Amino acid sequence: MAARDRVARVRALLDGVRRQGRAALTAPEGRLIADAYGIAVPGEELARDEDEAVAHAERFGGPVVMKIVSPDILHKTDAGGVLVGVEGEADVRAAFRTITGNARAYDERARIHGVQVQELVPPGQEVIVGAVTDPTFGKVVAFGLGGVLVEVLKDVTFRLAPVDTDEALSMLDSIRSAQVLRGVRGGPAVDRTAVAEQIRRVSELVTDFPEIAEVDLNPVIAGPDGAVAADIRVILGANAPAGRRRYTRDEILASMDRLMRPRSIAVIGASDVPGKIGHAVLRNLVDGGFAGEIHPVNPKADDIQGRKAYASVMDIPGEVDVAVFAVPARAVARVLEEVGRKNIPNAVLIPSGFAETGEQGLQDEITAIGERYGVRLLGPNIYGYYSTWQDVCATFCTPYDVKGGVALSSQSGGIGMAVLGFARTTNTGVSAIVGLGNKADLDEDDLLTWFGEDPRTRCVAMHLEDLKDGRAFVEAARATVPKKPVVVLKAGRTAAGARAAGSHTGALAGDDAVYDDVLRQAGVIRAPGLNDMLEYARALPVLPAPRGDNVVIITGAGGSGVLLSDAVTDNGLSLMEIPPDLDAAFREFIPPFGAAGNPVDITGGEPPSTYEATIRLGLEDPRVHALVLGYWHTIVTPPMVFAELTARVVAEFRERGVEKPVVASLAGDVEVEEACRYLYERGVVAYPYTTEMPVAVLGAKYRWARAAGLLGGRS
Amino acid sequence: MAARDRVARVRALLDGVRRQGRAALTAPEGRLIADAYGIAVPGEELARDEDEAVAHAERFGGPVVMKIVSPDILHKTDAGGVLVGVEGEADVRAAFRTITGNARAYDERARIHGVQVQELVPPGQEVIVGAVTDPTFGKVVAFGLGGVLVEVLKDVTFRLAPVDTDEALSMLDSIRSAQVLRGVRGGPAVDRTAVAEQIRRVSELVTDFPEIAEVDLNPVIAGPDGAVAADIRVILGANAPAGRRRYTRDEILASMDRLMRPRSIAVIGASDVPGKIGHAVLRNLVDGGFAGEIHPVNPKADDIQGRKAYASVMDIPGEVDVAVFAVPARAVARVLEEVGRKNIPNAVLIPSGFAETGEQGLQDEITAIGERYGVRLLGPNIYGYYSTWQDVCATFCTPYDVKGGVALSSQSGGIGMAVLGFARTTNTGVSAIVGLGNKADLDEDDLLTWFGEDPRTRCVAMHLEDLKDGRAFVEAARATVPKKPVVVLKAGRTAAGARAAGSHTGALAGDDAVYDDVLRQAGVIRAPGLNDMLEYARALPVLPAPRGDNVVIITGAGGSGVLLSDAVTDNGLSLMEIPPDLDAAFREFIPPFGAAGNPVDITGGEPPSTYEATIRLGLEDPRVHALVLGYWHTIVTPPMVFAELTARVVAEFRERGVEKPVVASLAGDVEVEEACRYLYERGVVAYPYTTEMPVAVLGAKYRWARAAGLLGGRS
Repeated sequence: MAARDRVARVRALLDGVRRQGRAALTAPEGRLIADAYGIAVPGEELARDEDEAVAHAERFGGPVVMKIVSPDILHKTDAGGVLVGVEGEADVRAAFRTITGNARAYDERARIHGVQVQELVPPGQEVIVGAVTDPTFGKVVAFGLGGVLVEVLKDVTFRLAPVDTDEALSMLDSIRSAQVLRGVRGGPAVDRTAVAEQIRRVSELVTDFPEIAEVDLNPVIAGPDGAVAADIRVILGANAPAGRRRYTRDEILASMDRLMRPRSIAVIGASDVPGKIGHAVLRNLVDGGFAGEIHPVNPKADDIQGRKAYASVMDIPGEVDVAVFAVPARAVARVLEEVGRKNIPNAVLIPSGFAETGEQGLQDEITAIGERYGVRLLGPNIYGYYSTWQDVCATFCTPYDVKGGVALSSQSGGIGMAVLGFARTTNTGVSAIVGLGNKADLDEDDLLTWFGEDPRTRCVAMHLEDLKDGRAFVEAARATVPKKPVVVLKAGRTAAGARAAGSHTGALAGDDAVYDDVLRQAGVIRAPGLNDMLEYARALPVLPAPRGDNVVIITGAGGSGVLLSDAVTDNGLSLMEIPPDLDAAFREFIPPFGAAGNPVDITGGEPPSTYEATIRLGLEDPRVHALVLGYWHTIVTPPMVFAELTARVVAEFRERGVEKPVVASLAGDVEVEEACRYLYERGVVAYPYTTEMPVAVLGAKYRWARAAGLLGGRS
Repeated sequence: MAARDRVARVRALLDGVRRQGRAALTAPEGRLIADAYGIAVPGEELARDEDEAVAHAERFGGPVVMKIVSPDILHKTDAGGVLVGVEGEADVRAAFRTITGNARAYDERARIHGVQVQELVPPGQEVIVGAVTDPTFGKVVAFGLGGVLVEVLKDVTFRLAPVDTDEALSMLDSIRSAQVLRGVRGGPAVDRTAVAEQIRRVSELVTDFPEIAEVDLNPVIAGPDGAVAADIRVILGANAPAGRRRYTRDEILASMDRLMRPRSIAVIGASDVPGKIGHAVLRNLVDGGFAGEIHPVNPKADDIQGRKAYASVMDIPGEVDVAVFAVPARAVARVLEEVGRKNIPNAVLIPSGFAETGEQGLQDEITAIGERYGVRLLGPNIYGYYSTWQDVCATFCTPYDVKGGVALSSQSGGIGMAVLGFARTTNTGVSAIVGLGNKADLDEDDLLTWFGEDPRTRCVAMHLEDLKDGRAFVEAARATVPKKPVVVLKAGRTAAGARAAGSHTGALAGDDAVYDDVLRQAGVIRAPGLNDMLEYARALPVLPAPRGDNVVIITGAGGSGVLLSDAVTDNGLSLMEIPPDLDAAFREFIPPFGAAGNPVDITGGEPPSTYEATIRLGLEDPRVHALVLGYWHTIVTPPMVFAELTARVVAEFRERGVEKPVVASLAGDVEVEEACRYLYERGVVAYPYTTEMPVAVLGAKYRWARAAGLLGGRS
């Protein structure tokens, strides 16, 4: 059916249902929709006489179900009006006569319209295909196996609707019990294309009709030659609410550029009184070394911290890029009007006292002002932001000046402080730290759009509790991931966490299963916890991208080798099967009782030369793509000796253009801490007292490399 | 059947099978065994005439399957010799005649023994009951759901055989799809007792007959009124190999006491040459402050490091408790004979060059010498051991003197060095650190037996790659867990890790699924990684045991509250449903826009008094059992102010006899690190930059408390 025709037909049907005040569609209505969208259902036809019955049955092929059709007979079975498994012309004719005869005998005055001939679906694997409306991501299709086990084990996968055939096919491999669909115990594989087609068509349907809140094809019977929806259920919902003001990509980049690379900053509510936020913000901007103009705004002073103060932003000469607000919540709206009139593109709203304290009205008011003037709002209820390469510390916290490759954002101020402390203690190189707070306007997708383009930023890491617009985020992530890794810590993962999120932000946290699937498809690396996010943020910009899947462990401690191998498997990485020639090459350097293979166990008492020779081999051989080193503290090779030789060899190869990710786990006394710092600063991601973290960050880098399409094959 | 009779009957049967050189039993043989052990199978009888057939069918009740029994008819169905679903006297009689008639028609010379009448098992849930012989744990029973999904998802649970009824019943709840057995989608629940009985009886069978390597009841059809094994498969294997020398509990405690609390230590191979192991060991014993006698043994010197040296241990006057070996592997056996003759109970074998380098023969030789004299061997191939409360540093590493509650052991030297470094940098209070190495004799169960009794030790943490004797370990763990937590890091968890373990120690790593289930049942806390083991080891002795399940989060950072809630759920803990009166009490202290409920969100700008008042409430209320604190660094309540007030309040309640576990996550700038150290030293387990770790260690403490039976209900 032509796309326009089918839309018109379903539109008419849904309008009719609406007029009747119904939300749930009847089975025949569901069937009409299925027919319009080519969703395969069992064949079904009305036969008014024996010949028609025979013709229908022949067309379906195989056995059929035959049922009396009479407005006067409600209980068809009681009336002898149902026969199952009828096959062959003679039997179909006989069945037609039997059924109509029984019906007449049951009620001689019944009006008989004929006999319904229905295709009997052959047995197959029950699967479920559905669509729901997610509060964060909108229309989402779901796929899982049917049956009680899946109901109990919740083995379901989601995708944003609409999906194309490839994406639909990928869903069949995304469930834990995927193997069942490929045939187990000698059972046949299902017709994957047919199942995918059901998914694709459902996704088209809900995309065309936003008012369809839910579709359930349950079960779909999937056999080796097709997949048929035995039942279809359609539920209508409300239309989507009107959206927020949308800015174009160019508009976002223009205002973000002025936010992150400002030449002139106004501090509204700047103060001379230590302890006041307006004092700290101005102080930090100055102490942070910002080279542009800094304008205090305060109607009650001529001069603040030795700088000329203005009564209003309107009085500041020339263009202003950012207005940082350090005034009480009640004063924000009035000043924001002035900021709008002055054409300042960015308002950084530090004050709290908005939606997070129940003052949603106040927040809506400032959002509306921002939209009216096109002023982008950061916050409210934030600590401010850092743009390190520009020496911008527009925050009431302390300055941070370690310039580097990771841009971090946090929805919560507390998490922002943890980011700052962690970065400082680990000397993490940062391009930006941004507080998002209540997200009255600017949110993760705006930031991601900018950081994706920012050449200083090599990795983006975001703490978030909800997304205002899941689809905009996915779009921004998809545009960014081919260029750089995007790490997300989604808080409120669990039921208990989601409840806490609700009480904290008033935001409805989406179902985590949907988040998980959708973020993965967008190529986002999901951090399992705060500390992981911080370590990923620290490590990913440091590690080069891997060019292939072959990971080799070289270890001085066999015990570390075992644990590192565990970690390799846990993180979805593959230990390289070492080819015989490479194995022989390793064996030349290690004692006869050491174990080549993978891990390469050089044994514990070896001198620096053995570490060096084996690391060289791993870097030299183009078949090896990543190294995991396990160091064991001995008198023969002390920690700093190991660190120095490893850093030197890695640097030497880097100069020759050979860049492979190298991570290390150092087992030893406290001197290994200094060795790890030394290595980290030189691009070898090293940790003491853990075999898990070095491999976890390597795993994160690999997940990104796959999502970015750098490894081919898998995606 | 009386136990003796059934054993005799099965013994005779198995001997017959052995004589025929078979390993697999036939179906009738399996059936005989099932009958002997009361394993329910479908009823089945031979009917020689119609009357017998009717009698059998009546006894089974319900429909039966009838099959011709003739040595001359192999293809019963082809001969028309099988009828399914026969019910009622008339039909049974008719079927008997039909079958025998068909058989005669098929082959008139066939000898007909009669007709087999077999109970038709009603449809039900397919489950699998089995037993396998695990290389580590011996006879183990397994239970899972049947069907392809479980085959794909590997949802199976294991227990050491034999099991009693309660343990067997617990297996039904230990699979992920447990709910299926309780009935879903309106389906009936299975007869749990009947299923458990099948498990129990299989476990008895394999316990009685160690030569039975494998039993499979697959499937068992479990319905609402019974569970019947539709098929039984029995495979014979080799008899268990002869065991090592066993020491009694008293013998273990006596020698371990002298090892860990020695009065006199000999250092064999003591040396004056710095860089030699014999130099470092002697030096460390002296520098570590050991107050007992230290005797250098070296035939080539009269005096070593200023102490009188002996040519042989035989020459040392008086009793010696420990002989530390710092001589080459080849010299060990000869000296060990002398150690045996001198009645020294413990030999600490630092040297490498035994099984780990392929010298299994050398290792077997020293094991035999040790067994002959009753000298317990620690190692070989170890760094030595520490017994801190006795100031014993019998190791070539550096001394460690922070006395405390955790005893640690490691199979690998590298991991031992990581233990030492971690302990030193975190100031972890330790009672012992022991290297186990090749475990030629002493192993984890010996250590556990001693540490369980040692009053200084409040927690035991062990890194292991294999267990020589899984059952001895489980026994020791079961005896220890009611007194103190036992943490295990089992390396080689994954396939890749297990392969590395094989190449490292030559030990066959057991199947991880069996390890996981068996360790859990023994009440052991399994650490997912090295760093987790170290953090559990540090935290568990510090945290008091919880008295109940009600966990309350009090947080100044809403963002931390969400992440802490995630962590609570991830760790199997329960956020308390706060009763209205307690909620009202919390609300008195927090701003109107703060969120009571749980987490209690006191909001970010609050003064120390709000933290203090709410923490007091949580400690005071007897319905609250554990506190998780989320701190947010602000000017109003700086990190050390929070740390001081929290430690003070916790100490005050402790003096009043109120001890609850309190853990904290501190989000802030680097000052939070000092605050965490301050808190940790005062019994509040606090971490910076992570919301996961404080809850993970609390979760570990809870897992122990449940295993130790302190929380009632669950176990």
